[in-house]
Amino acid sequence: MTNDKLPSRNDNFSEWYNQLILKAELADYAPVRGCMVVRPYGWSLWENIQEGLDHRFKATGHVNAAFPLLIPMSFLEKEKEHVEGFSPELAVVTIGGGEKLEEPLVVRPTSETIIGHMYSKWIKSYRDLPVLINQWGNVVRWELRTRLFLRTLEFYWQEGHTAHATAEEAQDETLQMLNIYADFAINDAAVPVIPGRKSESEKFAGAVRSYSIEAMMGDTRALQAGTSHFLGQNFAQAFDIKFLDWNNELQYVWTTSWGLSTRFIGAIIMTHGDEQGLILPPKLAPIQVVIIPIYKNESEKSQVLEVVEQVRNQLNEFRLKVDSREDVTPGYKFNDWEMRGVPLRIEIGPKDVAKGTLAFARRDMPGKTGKSIVDRNQVSSRVSDILLAIHESLYDRALAFRQSNIYDPQNYDEMREVLQKGWAYSWWCGNPECETRMKEDTKATARCIPLDQPDGEGGCIYCGSKAKEKAYFARAY
Amino acid sequence: MTNDKLPSRNDNFSEWYNQLILKAELADYAPVRGCMVVRPYGWSLWENIQEGLDHRFKATGHVNAAFPLLIPMSFLEKEKEHVEGFSPELAVVTIGGGEKLEEPLVVRPTSETIIGHMYSKWIKSYRDLPVLINQWGNVVRWELRTRLFLRTLEFYWQEGHTAHATAEEAQDETLQMLNIYADFAINDAAVPVIPGRKSESEKFAGAVRSYSIEAMMGDTRALQAGTSHFLGQNFAQAFDIKFLDWNNELQYVWTTSWGLSTRFIGAIIMTHGDEQGLILPPKLAPIQVVIIPIYKNESEKSQVLEVVEQVRNQLNEFRLKVDSREDVTPGYKFNDWEMRGVPLRIEIGPKDVAKGTLAFARRDMPGKTGKSIVDRNQVSSRVSDILLAIHESLYDRALAFRQSNIYDPQNYDEMREVLQKGWAYSWWCGNPECETRMKEDTKATARCIPLDQPDGEGGCIYCGSKAKEKAYFARAY
Repeated sequence: MTNDKLPSRNDNFSEWYNQLILKAELADYAPVRGCMVVRPYGWSLWENIQEGLDHRFKATGHVNAAFPLLIPMSFLEKEKEHVEGFSPELAVVTIGGGEKLEEPLVVRPTSETIIGHMYSKWIKSYRDLPVLINQWGNVVRWELRTRLFLRTLEFYWQEGHTAHATAEEAQDETLQMLNIYADFAINDAAVPVIPGRKSESEKFAGAVRSYSIEAMMGDTRALQAGTSHFLGQNFAQAFDIKFLDWNNELQYVWTTSWGLSTRFIGAIIMTHGDEQGLILPPKLAPIQVVIIPIYKNESEKSQVLEVVEQVRNQLNEFRLKVDSREDVTPGYKFNDWEMRGVPLRIEIGPKDVAKGTLAFARRDMPGKTGKSIVDRNQVSSRVSDILLAIHESLYDRALAFRQSNIYDPQNYDEMREVLQKGWAYSWWCGNPECETRMKEDTKATARCIPLDQPDGEGGCIYCGSKAKEKAYFARAY
Repeated sequence: MTNDKLPSRNDNFSEWYNQLILKAELADYAPVRGCMVVRPYGWSLWENIQEGLDHRFKATGHVNAAFPLLIPMSFLEKEKEHVEGFSPELAVVTIGGGEKLEEPLVVRPTSETIIGHMYSKWIKSYRDLPVLINQWGNVVRWELRTRLFLRTLEFYWQEGHTAHATAEEAQDETLQMLNIYADFAINDAAVPVIPGRKSESEKFAGAVRSYSIEAMMGDTRALQAGTSHFLGQNFAQAFDIKFLDWNNELQYVWTTSWGLSTRFIGAIIMTHGDEQGLILPPKLAPIQVVIIPIYKNESEKSQVLEVVEQVRNQLNEFRLKVDSREDVTPGYKFNDWEMRGVPLRIEIGPKDVAKGTLAFARRDMPGKTGKSIVDRNQVSSRVSDILLAIHESLYDRALAFRQSNIYDPQNYDEMREVLQKGWAYSWWCGNPECETRMKEDTKATARCIPLDQPDGEGGCIYCGSKAKEKAYFARAY
């Protein structure tokens, strides 16, 4: 309950991020290294993210299910690249019910293997396809360097796992889900993202092709905010998932997987936040509107609170909070809710009561520019309009920031320079060796090869050989 | 894709239950002993249960959060009864990231300890109270005998954990949540339940008092369908959760916990199901209405499907499925959706098209009694009415069944007899020794001491000594 200052976002972005999460009560450190507690305000944000994604998944024919947390170690070993990728990160249960287990069980780091096992039982015929299942849950990866939301030992996510009769259909599904992530990021979270293909070295362990949406954070670093993988027949072969096709011949299915996690909360914080704290996109904000009653004595109080109740009822379609605390000042409350990122504040004082007006203050425009006086009778439509305007201004601001920090270096010397302050958008031959060397020089990696490509071709920014695609390079979270 | 017969519910209730779950695709066995996969149809039922509970929790001021899956072993040891109760059932992670952990981590069997630890950090003053947090998640208990939904190594549930300034407030919360469970069971699931206090031997490990809702299954066995615990200051002392009270004195908080799990799906199956399969309560059914188009040739087909689309649009407020499969007969579809428990079937054939009518068939009334012809223009209000009527008839039937199987034995010999065929409702002195001996004789336990008690007192059904309360005794799941 203090209005202590945050570390400066400009001077120390990293500490600003850590302290803001604690201070806004989004999350806290758990007693186990690298684990987090997602506090109610943070979980409510995640519930809104879940809802935004879940209705998009269901609208495209997906259903939810739940697969076990514990996976036999031998399952992971069935897909060679998969086990190589994940075995350094596993949490392993060796004791159950007081006895040493015959086969150790892995706490799932992802569920391709156990879902593959079940699909091999369920899928018999082309009539059983496609299988379009999503799961909301928790996974554990034993990461060494952790950050709240961005990289924690346990995190929350959804993982979609689909099986199809043809490669084309699976590839279409992979891109459909990538586009759903992009649509959600842009239209619900006001986070501009670039959908694209991952380079070979950044591919998911076991995938044929991986795709991601990439976002630029407020310090210009890149963040992978959601991924979608075309798994080919790799897991179908490892888990013997076969179906009888239209010609009565046994075929392996084609599978995909795609996921978006609580990491996305980190993307929201680092895209929109400012020196005062969080700025939450209106469609996802746990509290969209906060009402602060202002009064000096009991007679003013009763008049003001009566109007507060009327306005609360007029706004019952919004997620609204009335801050009626009596042990802190209105000024304290302004700072507190600004720090917590509530998009719109409504102040109601005795003068507003007398005039039939309300004082609005937009979180995205500090100071006078964000303030307006609104007729009480029009409050509901004005709130709608302003929340929409805030969404748009957040998106536009983030997009303009990204555009001003993406460079088109003319040679590798320039590239090394721009990668210290932003992203490079460059022709690349796709050779993993070029990427490895650039990473050694600059700490930047290929973030994605965007789906949207220019015409023509150019010389690889590193080696000069012929390149048919441009890629984004950046230092990343 | 077969219409194989289920085992008979009357002859073999247990096999009927197991086979029905697999056949209706509610769940499947996982490759790890005792674990289950909840399939989309079962998970959709769970999502509706979650929604029914979650809005009740939020309406009473609770918020959701997420606490870690992994708990240091030493945390459990801080509350003596708690660790004694849970240590035989633990799954233990001993390896993380390829290395042996210094302190083993327990996969949570329940979260009182880790939440207690966090509350001790967050709660400082009476202003921070009450804390009213719920968590939706998974827990693991290493059970030896498992049954799908009823008792699995991993299960899904919600666990509420609240902290209060006074014992009275915590006790009120405990009973409020018990009543919310009862309200949900009765009004959403059509499952009659008896709210009551658990006996000393059936208490939660670490609780001062435990309460439960108890339901009678179709074979007359009892099932504990939700629990609410008054934890006193046991966990507050173990985890040092203190607050400065109004007099600026440090006090321990008073805590509660309460949970309802995927076990409740077992209660729904075993309360309402019949020889044909599942009967799902309309408010929770994943599919409330199934439409079966009936036609013999292409011309009939196009007429019928046109009307099917009209009716689908008229019923868009319901969870509806049109079964347009072409490789199975209407008769096959009738059996299939009956087995899956869809409350209402609508058949649309050429005669219905011509007459402007629809043929309704209620799942809870097989044969002619459940059938009716409905005017197409009134379909929406008729569906509403019939779904409500089905809810009520399911509840009434289950209540009548329970009442006809509860006995009031006059002595212990009679009690032993009635406990072979139903429940006993008897005066009991509350002595754990009486309960232990009755259990040895009859396999029945005290299910609960109902909140609703008769006046007066009687002699304990076992030992004859003075008894102030009546209790329900039954063999239980």
